[in-house]
Amino acid sequence: MVIRRLSIIGVGLLGGSLGLAAKKLINGCHVIGYGHRAMTLGKAIEMSAIDQATQDLTEAVRDADCVVLCTPVGMFQRLLTQMSPSLKPGAIVTDVGSTKRSVVEQAEKILPETVAFVGSHPMAGSEKRGVEFARGDLFDGAVCITTPLPTSPVDAVETVENLWKTVGMRIIRTTPIEHDQRVALISHLPHAVAAAMVAIQNDPSLALAGKGFLDATRIAAGDGTLWRDIFIDNSDAVRASLGRLIQELDHFATLLRPESASQLKEWLDQIADKRQSLS
Amino acid sequence: MVIRRLSIIGVGLLGGSLGLAAKKLINGCHVIGYGHRAMTLGKAIEMSAIDQATQDLTEAVRDADCVVLCTPVGMFQRLLTQMSPSLKPGAIVTDVGSTKRSVVEQAEKILPETVAFVGSHPMAGSEKRGVEFARGDLFDGAVCITTPLPTSPVDAVETVENLWKTVGMRIIRTTPIEHDQRVALISHLPHAVAAAMVAIQNDPSLALAGKGFLDATRIAAGDGTLWRDIFIDNSDAVRASLGRLIQELDHFATLLRPESASQLKEWLDQIADKRQSLS
Repeated sequence: MVIRRLSIIGVGLLGGSLGLAAKKLINGCHVIGYGHRAMTLGKAIEMSAIDQATQDLTEAVRDADCVVLCTPVGMFQRLLTQMSPSLKPGAIVTDVGSTKRSVVEQAEKILPETVAFVGSHPMAGSEKRGVEFARGDLFDGAVCITTPLPTSPVDAVETVENLWKTVGMRIIRTTPIEHDQRVALISHLPHAVAAAMVAIQNDPSLALAGKGFLDATRIAAGDGTLWRDIFIDNSDAVRASLGRLIQELDHFATLLRPESASQLKEWLDQIADKRQSLS
Repeated sequence: MVIRRLSIIGVGLLGGSLGLAAKKLINGCHVIGYGHRAMTLGKAIEMSAIDQATQDLTEAVRDADCVVLCTPVGMFQRLLTQMSPSLKPGAIVTDVGSTKRSVVEQAEKILPETVAFVGSHPMAGSEKRGVEFARGDLFDGAVCITTPLPTSPVDAVETVENLWKTVGMRIIRTTPIEHDQRVALISHLPHAVAAAMVAIQNDPSLALAGKGFLDATRIAAGDGTLWRDIFIDNSDAVRASLGRLIQELDHFATLLRPESASQLKEWLDQIADKRQSLS
């Protein structure tokens, strides 16, 4: 399916960037932006991130070929419920949420049978928030995870995956549960740890903060509402990842003795190799 | 005191960068580089990071006004012992080690009374190692911690602090113990945590690694020998910092419930503000 009308629900960093990219890369695609703040919508129009702005959800999704939820995950349930009656038959709904199990469950439960939902998690973004930081190349070269179900219509899956490919992303398909476990380990846990690491610093230690600390904790500057929703939604997998990390830190602590110097070096060397291989 | 002869013991990233900066910024300063690998010394000469290279420690320190230890901390004891008989009276010795309590203790015990030691920790560097990554502006704008003792000669303290100021650093003076505690929290702990976070990843999670994870774990690519020495030398303070972090992560884990959503948001918001204020 060719997307002629794309509805972006929530025009922040991700929604705005998707609008910029879609308007540039999808021929003849009309982009509608929904939001509750007039100022944000005005800025999105000014930046040409969207063609049309509305604070009315019904107007935003009516006649849309594809609707993309770009708000924090905690708002999805209400938005899906409110938009359901206004979606045209054959419309495809997706999202950019950082959790997928509960999102896919909600969508399956709430949306009418005439509408297909395919979960997406474009792994792009930054600690910045707001449409003013939107960039048309935000998605370029990054990974997008899609989580279709065995019952998802092939056409809908292809349309959603093509949308992300068009804006430059590489697709990895997983189940919703597998997605949540994998991102808990590689994304949600690092965020929590960076936050805790900032929390425990005091003025004397912060006076010594160098590039290493700043890089390691940059993600902790991210939006609190967004991350609250992610952590609560994915609490089981986050707890499991946290347990695994603490186990590894306990192991590290046992190596902090002159007698364990060679094992400690081996641990550090193996990890340095593994990290270097990533980029 | 004007440094006319500067001896750099260990010509890696830090030693090489110090040589480049000193040759550029200290008028008429002759820089001698000591190392055990001929190839490294050759490269340092080729890059003009040093004026003269030697694999003989006695030759390296003889007649030096100032000697800077730039090897991993674990080699300091042997180097100080070997160089002691060859240091001229009035020579000043300093270092770039990331731990200070044991280093200062060793230097006080080993060096002759005619020689002054002032501990330094220039907080610059990167996960890269080797003189080929040396840069004359590596220290520019960063913090250098010095740890003079109440008994340190004022002239020696000034000479060492001026050396770091000349290459662009801002000086913070602390006691050796206070240094070790503060850097355990802001530097050594983040390294250990980044390492553990890399260690627990598997191929499926690593396939999803994005910019956030890469930034948060970049320090874990650092040199294993260097970090083994730091961790073992500063094990008490590292263990204490680790305990504090795990306490904070336990607190975070208690907030992972819908009932605690507002407290979790408050925790995340406060941390995001604190982190944003840093840069």
